[in-house]
Amino acid sequence: MRTALVIGTGLMGTSAALALVSRGVEVYLEDHDPSVARTAAALGAGSALPPEGQVDLVVVAVPPAHVAATLADAQRRGLARGYLDVASVKAGPRRDLQALGCDLSRYIGTHPMAGRERSGPLAGTADLFEGRPWVLTPTRETGTEVLNLALELVALCRAVPVVMDADEHDRAVALVSHTPQLVSSMVAARLQHAEDTAVRLCGQGIRDVTRIAGSEPGMWMDILAANPGPVADVLAEVATDLTGAVEALRGLQSADEDKRRTGAAGIEDILLRGNAGRDRVPGKHGTAPKAYEVVAVLIGDQPGELARIFADAGAAGVNIEDVRIEHSTGQQAGRVQLMVEPAAAPGLTSALRDRGWSIRS
Amino acid sequence: MRTALVIGTGLMGTSAALALVSRGVEVYLEDHDPSVARTAAALGAGSALPPEGQVDLVVVAVPPAHVAATLADAQRRGLARGYLDVASVKAGPRRDLQALGCDLSRYIGTHPMAGRERSGPLAGTADLFEGRPWVLTPTRETGTEVLNLALELVALCRAVPVVMDADEHDRAVALVSHTPQLVSSMVAARLQHAEDTAVRLCGQGIRDVTRIAGSEPGMWMDILAANPGPVADVLAEVATDLTGAVEALRGLQSADEDKRRTGAAGIEDILLRGNAGRDRVPGKHGTAPKAYEVVAVLIGDQPGELARIFADAGAAGVNIEDVRIEHSTGQQAGRVQLMVEPAAAPGLTSALRDRGWSIRS
Repeated sequence: MRTALVIGTGLMGTSAALALVSRGVEVYLEDHDPSVARTAAALGAGSALPPEGQVDLVVVAVPPAHVAATLADAQRRGLARGYLDVASVKAGPRRDLQALGCDLSRYIGTHPMAGRERSGPLAGTADLFEGRPWVLTPTRETGTEVLNLALELVALCRAVPVVMDADEHDRAVALVSHTPQLVSSMVAARLQHAEDTAVRLCGQGIRDVTRIAGSEPGMWMDILAANPGPVADVLAEVATDLTGAVEALRGLQSADEDKRRTGAAGIEDILLRGNAGRDRVPGKHGTAPKAYEVVAVLIGDQPGELARIFADAGAAGVNIEDVRIEHSTGQQAGRVQLMVEPAAAPGLTSALRDRGWSIRS
Repeated sequence: MRTALVIGTGLMGTSAALALVSRGVEVYLEDHDPSVARTAAALGAGSALPPEGQVDLVVVAVPPAHVAATLADAQRRGLARGYLDVASVKAGPRRDLQALGCDLSRYIGTHPMAGRERSGPLAGTADLFEGRPWVLTPTRETGTEVLNLALELVALCRAVPVVMDADEHDRAVALVSHTPQLVSSMVAARLQHAEDTAVRLCGQGIRDVTRIAGSEPGMWMDILAANPGPVADVLAEVATDLTGAVEALRGLQSADEDKRRTGAAGIEDILLRGNAGRDRVPGKHGTAPKAYEVVAVLIGDQPGELARIFADAGAAGVNIEDVRIEHSTGQQAGRVQLMVEPAAAPGLTSALRDRGWSIRS
């Protein structure tokens, strides 16, 4: 691909444009707000002027509800050989395109599984998609030319192509992304009017469960409104478990031993199924999460403390697989959990002890 | 306090014993499995022999269901001046103690908000409770002597005492700990039989939401069985939100514009209440979570990479407040997110760039 036009220069569009520019593609930028396109251009994402003649690929990077109209308009203007969108929902936009009479042989729906806490062109980076799954949803109507243009885009962005059916994609993201978002919000919502003393008791568990409840509501409204059916289906399954859990807990309150036994079995079932599901969440390098050994080190809160730990670990030849910093309530000191391969833990522990660190395991 | 007897030498009991020993208290250890008490003794947590004469304080560190019988037995044997337990549920054990005719003037129910992924005496550490909230639940019957012994224990373990009513405590932990645990399990349970391609799309959001779903079911059975009422009450509230969300999403699927508008408002309400609740979760140092700036750095997977980043950050005089390592699907490289005070971000970014790091923001 030599030329591309990116329509919609927010986080996703600008990031794709930056990646293409860095690999030598001539990129043009368009946005319904021309000043946003000029901002992206100023960041080096391409030219905010209209392309002279047809480009190879149009990348539509607008909210799900605007994909079909934007893409139909681009096709009417005959802007490119191939057209794709990068919206996070795939079945709805495709139906709308069909209704608008678009040329579906020149279109493919795609979804790069990448994002950031921030939005807009200023948050864009050329490496946003590196190593991330990028879903492609070709159909029997999809032409080979646009499929290859999409695969080239994914390769230039250094992402990993994953082919899926559009409906299958929407069910998958309902499961692994949209439902967790809403459930996290519902758990967090319970804290809104909670007593201060209760909130003071929050630990790392609820902190992790509610992290994404801090996400931007506007973006999530767009996403959920575009995928209501599949999300409702998964939420209804969670609701069934939830009703079962409430019943099981009421059983555990009962004076009747049979009811208590049934209640205990119901709760255990949920915990065990949770274990089994959690085991399937991929960790680093796209594989199942490994059981790392945790080496916990006490630190002060001065610059350089972490550097010293990591330098000492590096000197011991140990690779830190993951790290978590845990601060204590009302204190300046904290604990650093270093996750390492189990075989490396004893060596790291003694190396850090030798260098004067206070180790917890 | 000069002498203490710890009954139950698992993670909590052994950790308290180690802390007391390190501060010069003479500690005796007892467990229904004598070999477990001997293991704790071998770790330096005290003596596994019975105390000669009365001790100052008995610390009962057994599962919630066994607290009352263990404590009543200790009182019958006249082992101490004061008695407390450290179980994670407080109202039930207290009721049981009353039913067993215990001397409630010499007893106080307590709960240190600390834990680890591992259990048993070998996981015990003297600093487990440092900086953590330690809930005390005195009543009008509680004598001053046992209250002061409990406060001394908390101080010797360097925890932060928090006084609460027993029922209030049980409702608080149902809210901030027990309900998030069950909900995390329910979200994870959806993945048990999911398609491989769907699971491949998991990102950091669902990873965080389901982390505690990997917890040990046995321990959680004990905890939930001891606090069924308050957990059922909070779960029932979540169920109401969940039913509302399913209805709202079905509304968004409707052809009727009014229904779509009502549906959108329902979803927005949940997202906004989630934002408000999340804002209350305390971050480091027991304060509200600060908005840190994220500086994202690309790294390879060799030992020493992290050390170099932290050394370079330390050399720039920047304190890393938190850190997250994000690995990419199917790739060896990863991204390190460094959380710093917003004012420190530009300096850190340019310092790391100067030293050759590839920065994403």
